[in-house]
Amino acid sequence: MRLQLATWPEVEAYLKQSRGIVIPIGSTEQHGPTGFVGTDALCPELVAWGLGEREGVMVAPTLSIGMAQHHLGFPGSISLRPTTLIAVVLDTVNSLARHGFERFFFLNGHGGNIATLAAAFSELYAESSLGTAGHNRPPIRCRLENWWDGEGVKAISAEVFAESEGSHATASEVSLTYYGYPEDGARVKSPEPLSPRLAPCGPIYDAEDYRRRFPDGRIGSDPTLASAETGARLYEASVADMTERYQAFLAED
Amino acid sequence: MRLQLATWPEVEAYLKQSRGIVIPIGSTEQHGPTGFVGTDALCPELVAWGLGEREGVMVAPTLSIGMAQHHLGFPGSISLRPTTLIAVVLDTVNSLARHGFERFFFLNGHGGNIATLAAAFSELYAESSLGTAGHNRPPIRCRLENWWDGEGVKAISAEVFAESEGSHATASEVSLTYYGYPEDGARVKSPEPLSPRLAPCGPIYDAEDYRRRFPDGRIGSDPTLASAETGARLYEASVADMTERYQAFLAED
Amino acid sequence: MRLQLATWPEVEAYLKQSRGIVIPIGSTEQHGPTGFVGTDALCPELVAWGLGEREGVMVAPTLSIGMAQHHLGFPGSISLRPTTLIAVVLDTVNSLARHGFERFFFLNGHGGNIATLAAAFSELYAESSLGTAGHNRPPIRCRLENWWDGEGVKAISAEVFAESEGSHATASEVSLTYYGYPEDGARVKSPEPLSPRLAPCGPIYDAEDYRRRFPDGRIGSDPTLASAETGARLYEASVADMTERYQAFLAED
Amino acid sequence: MRLQLATWPEVEAYLKQSRGIVIPIGSTEQHGPTGFVGTDALCPELVAWGLGEREGVMVAPTLSIGMAQHHLGFPGSISLRPTTLIAVVLDTVNSLARHGFERFFFLNGHGGNIATLAAAFSELYAESSLGTAGHNRPPIRCRLENWWDGEGVKAISAEVFAESEGSHATASEVSLTYYGYPEDGARVKSPEPLSPRLAPCGPIYDAEDYRRRFPDGRIGSDPTLASAETGARLYEASVADMTERYQAFLAED
Amino acid sequence: MRLQLATWPEVEAYLKQSRGIVIPIGSTEQHGPTGFVGTDALCPELVAWGLGEREGVMVAPTLSIGMAQHHLGFPGSISLRPTTLIAVVLDTVNSLARHGFERFFFLNGHGGNIATLAAAFSELYAESSLGTAGHNRPPIRCRLENWWDGEGVKAISAEVFAESEGSHATASEVSLTYYGYPEDGARVKSPEPLSPRLAPCGPIYDAEDYRRRFPDGRIGSDPTLASAETGARLYEASVADMTERYQAFLAED
Amino acid sequence: MRLQLATWPEVEAYLKQSRGIVIPIGSTEQHGPTGFVGTDALCPELVAWGLGEREGVMVAPTLSIGMAQHHLGFPGSISLRPTTLIAVVLDTVNSLARHGFERFFFLNGHGGNIATLAAAFSELYAESSLGTAGHNRPPIRCRLENWWDGEGVKAISAEVFAESEGSHATASEVSLTYYGYPEDGARVKSPEPLSPRLAPCGPIYDAEDYRRRFPDGRIGSDPTLASAETGARLYEASVADMTERYQAFLAED
Repeated sequence: MRLQLATWPEVEAYLKQSRGIVIPIGSTEQHGPTGFVGTDALCPELVAWGLGEREGVMVAPTLSIGMAQHHLGFPGSISLRPTTLIAVVLDTVNSLARHGFERFFFLNGHGGNIATLAAAFSELYAESSLGTAGHNRPPIRCRLENWWDGEGVKAISAEVFAESEGSHATASEVSLTYYGYPEDGARVKSPEPLSPRLAPCGPIYDAEDYRRRFPDGRIGSDPTLASAETGARLYEASVADMTERYQAFLAED
Repeated sequence: MRLQLATWPEVEAYLKQSRGIVIPIGSTEQHGPTGFVGTDALCPELVAWGLGEREGVMVAPTLSIGMAQHHLGFPGSISLRPTTLIAVVLDTVNSLARHGFERFFFLNGHGGNIATLAAAFSELYAESSLGTAGHNRPPIRCRLENWWDGEGVKAISAEVFAESEGSHATASEVSLTYYGYPEDGARVKSPEPLSPRLAPCGPIYDAEDYRRRFPDGRIGSDPTLASAETGARLYEASVADMTERYQAFLAED
Repeated sequence: MRLQLATWPEVEAYLKQSRGIVIPIGSTEQHGPTGFVGTDALCPELVAWGLGEREGVMVAPTLSIGMAQHHLGFPGSISLRPTTLIAVVLDTVNSLARHGFERFFFLNGHGGNIATLAAAFSELYAESSLGTAGHNRPPIRCRLENWWDGEGVKAISAEVFAESEGSHATASEVSLTYYGYPEDGARVKSPEPLSPRLAPCGPIYDAEDYRRRFPDGRIGSDPTLASAETGARLYEASVADMTERYQAFLAED
Repeated sequence: MRLQLATWPEVEAYLKQSRGIVIPIGSTEQHGPTGFVGTDALCPELVAWGLGEREGVMVAPTLSIGMAQHHLGFPGSISLRPTTLIAVVLDTVNSLARHGFERFFFLNGHGGNIATLAAAFSELYAESSLGTAGHNRPPIRCRLENWWDGEGVKAISAEVFAESEGSHATASEVSLTYYGYPEDGARVKSPEPLSPRLAPCGPIYDAEDYRRRFPDGRIGSDPTLASAETGARLYEASVADMTERYQAFLAED
Repeated sequence: MRLQLATWPEVEAYLKQSRGIVIPIGSTEQHGPTGFVGTDALCPELVAWGLGEREGVMVAPTLSIGMAQHHLGFPGSISLRPTTLIAVVLDTVNSLARHGFERFFFLNGHGGNIATLAAAFSELYAESSLGTAGHNRPPIRCRLENWWDGEGVKAISAEVFAESEGSHATASEVSLTYYGYPEDGARVKSPEPLSPRLAPCGPIYDAEDYRRRFPDGRIGSDPTLASAETGARLYEASVADMTERYQAFLAED
Repeated sequence: MRLQLATWPEVEAYLKQSRGIVIPIGSTEQHGPTGFVGTDALCPELVAWGLGEREGVMVAPTLSIGMAQHHLGFPGSISLRPTTLIAVVLDTVNSLARHGFERFFFLNGHGGNIATLAAAFSELYAESSLGTAGHNRPPIRCRLENWWDGEGVKAISAEVFAESEGSHATASEVSLTYYGYPEDGARVKSPEPLSPRLAPCGPIYDAEDYRRRFPDGRIGSDPTLASAETGARLYEASVADMTERYQAFLAED
């Protein structure tokens, strides 16, 4: 159930049977010559919508812009500063908590968000711990899970891409977006290998340094192996993986 | 051209022929018993995608959460505080400006965003005026236009809904979302009139006061008149209206 | 009754019969070659003092510095960033609310403040809506009214200045300050027409762009038509206009 | 020369012969049963205007609201939080510095502002020291002087009030306001001694604690000794004291 | 070489041969019934001082207070909010970068700091990427390493404590502090087993929830196995581990 | 009793007999050619540890980095911006207040901290005065005392150093650190007089201006007179002075 497509009485009804919500969060940043700028937002959105539909779970609107300062050397990349992203997460959670939501499952599509989201969760908990949270806020719990981190997805990646998966503009994430957006995927898919076939690896600092180390944006990956067919398999696997994690989160004592 | 579905080399190519970008911005808030919580984000997103596709204009990901504190008395509403929204707009514009974008056309779907966005634009300009903008930022201009503010849309609204249009959960915006999301529209459409048929009018303060004044969330409207058919007409009209405004903005001296 | 000239027991006594207060707010910014830098603060201050004296209404000290980043290309202009102005309004209202003031009537003299003040009001209401307002704060309501926006003032402007009124360094506001500060008015009044007689019109961005578009600072106006005599009429009209609006605000349900 | 009553070309001309400006800063807070809520703003404003007129020095609009959290237990008191006041000072100085002002003389009327203003100056200097100041900002220097701190004023206070001067709602500051606002002074002046004649002394913490320690708001003073006549002497003395300090500040290497 | 015990000419000389610095960072928080509140700051400080002395590396003063909101249910725990800690790291790095330091090695003693520090690094890099860093700041790189994360330390922990190590108030960290502060260690060391011997495990949310899950503060550990003797071994191992990592960081392209 | 070396049950026990805590606060900044960069943190730390040990008073970890923007022209100096330092003090006090600490005695080693700390205390009190403090925070009181400000220390300084004491890199503070860190003191002690023997005096602005006025960092002092022997006397005197002040603070009504 997408929150954006629900009426408020429907949300009210939902809250009578569940206190959980899924919040897809991604990024808007370059994904190499053959990947969409929106890859990291589109992937968790697809998975979250699948999970929401199959399980009757409420899915918040996607937070499409994340922390991506290192990609700012490539046109189209947008980044919130960490402190801005923390404020966005605070306001989003505090708004929903006011209605009675208590368990916030951030379904994440971008490695660069992980640390800042963990900091945001701590900022939220600190409001409880220091007694400054809104007087109408219930106790809350936040959880971050990456769509690619379950066993199902990892098995497919290992089977199909092995060491060509990489860590940015990965073959898996590009596949998933080709599955979700096949026409656009067909347009950007490269008929030929990129050069070098496997992108370099290395540490991440600021945008200028990043572009110097990773000239076409990829890290360690060969996304020309990506396909909508593998994307379809990854989609099913991730929906299953995330459903399991979401249910465990809700069941947690 | 949706930024999310473009590759960075495509964005790079786009910047050689245009410095403009459309940024849909909305809100996630109750829209009465028959309107989607996402109405204010979905409407400008639909129009922006139409404009982008027909005119070859770059469209940023939708900023789906806006300033909606007054709706927090109704489940599902999410609000950024004004200062948070200002930070989001700053980071978004500053990121894109770094790549060479110079004219930012915010296609807005929520009256409650207008003041805060104007404040955000001033905060951005103040960085130029006080000499603290990033050294790699070109001169920028921001513009806000509401999808419903053009002559085409206004004419249809006057013709079809007249005084039943209202000012929140309006017949027009609900129609546009029913057009964009017909299945969900069919689910939430009310077969019977709401009571009272026309919602009350009045001033807006905090969430508690709002709910007291406007018990089902609507202000002044009868959204049961909404239809996907009128939505289709409004869509065409708004795309035309906004295209004209966007082009005028780009042509401005 | 000016708050600055009252003792605290007098304020305490006032609060037993009224919960309202007028807060003049303006700006410190260029007003063309013949207008005072303080025009936008002096005008609402004059009107507020008149209203306060005649009606026995408490008038807070004038917030003389507003949001004027676009005028920073002209010597003497001072601007708060929007986020700073929001903080000032928050602290001012929260301080007064602690004493029992509940209705805050901002009598404004500067168009550039309007958006930021609306954002500040939302920030205040958001504290209520999210449950983070001070535990000793009553429910509050804020209202902004521009001294020139009432029917009385508009009629005089239309009668005397017509299309020469303009939108910055207007003939009306300059007249009102000449009335309030006749000696200084006599010093700066231009014996000859400015060139061009009517200043240009156009959009507002940052300070550099503003100065390029509006070389002597005026927008659309011919302030050489200003006179202390017309200022006297405008003063009376605005006091009456604002008194009416203030009383309506206090009477509001 | 009051900045509020100057035109921008007059400010431009002034800057050709001086880089200094006087900024009166005060507070809006209770001053006991016989003192004005605006005492701390009115006093430095009077002195600054005198200094400005006699010496041809530019005087900025008065910052009338300062840091007065400890007075919030008494109706009418308004306080900026220290961090808000720091932001106000930053924006004010940075705006004026952009025009070429380099030496900022804060003529202060409130002991409670001193620490926060010193912190604000450091925040401004830190922008220089860390290289983040606006690229159009010249090197700046800020100075705070209290209107009562010169030798002339101290001599009169010692002669007339001796140990009855006190440290809040002092006999001197009340005198100066009675001189500046004689009609209002006549209204609030107490015909009888307050009880106790000399208010208690003690440390300052939060508002509740303050009211407990100092039940009528005064600290250590007997302001019933205040008179407009002594106020006139104090005015002359303070203008002379501050003129000397201002000139020394401008002459400083 | 401890920065605190160096003179500025010594720092100047150091910068001629190295651009790197070690910054110990910890936390002040409960460590169970037998661990010091300062454990997480004392451990990295000890290791950093060892590394600094043996290798002639500059060591900054220890940042002793970290992000520990979850421990606030236990007396003595102190936490910075994540946004505060980010500001501290920004100012510290920006100050040192101004002198020419370019590589910042945060030797960390607290798992709860990791996410916030990563966010802080991104905030710093974002200043470079968005062009708002101080004009006198060189390109910078930050690295976080936990004193316990090297192979040497892990081998000892596995050998001596195995599954009794745990994840908070671990046997290893308690040992290291007993080694560093033997008298105090002797005072707090428990002669008897705690109950339960192995503390429970579980997720971390706010302070109240934490205390409910982990009643004596430990997570998963049996710190009664800790000894100064094992601490001595851990000290040597960690100095070696961290030296290797620091040198690799400096040598990085 | 050092908080860092206590267990949480020991802190809990302490709180049953006292609500006071000593927080040493200093700075990391150049102290001339013969003084340690850490002088201002090491001095109050030494005194606080002495006081804590002799009187059984709890001593928090030293806040070693203060407000030192003016020293940033000399290698090794680190500064928090005033707003950052305010945030650190807020979080530190609010954390400890949650456990029941009510009286916070900041034992300070740096003149440049005084104003910002006073502002921070006001920010804390403003939370009480405006009703926004954490619901679990008791009424709090903060006090700042400089280790050198008692009568005992002043007498020794006057006797031994007289006019050679100076105001930065003073003979006294350098002596105290030589006493505390004799080996390092022996290394940096100058066998010959500095030139000029007495450093110049003058006002303090930004870092560049500071270095111009005070080329080797000292202000007004001759620290070559410093000795560990005098340091030992100063230590004893300061512990006695501060003990007296601390006890008076705790005894205060």
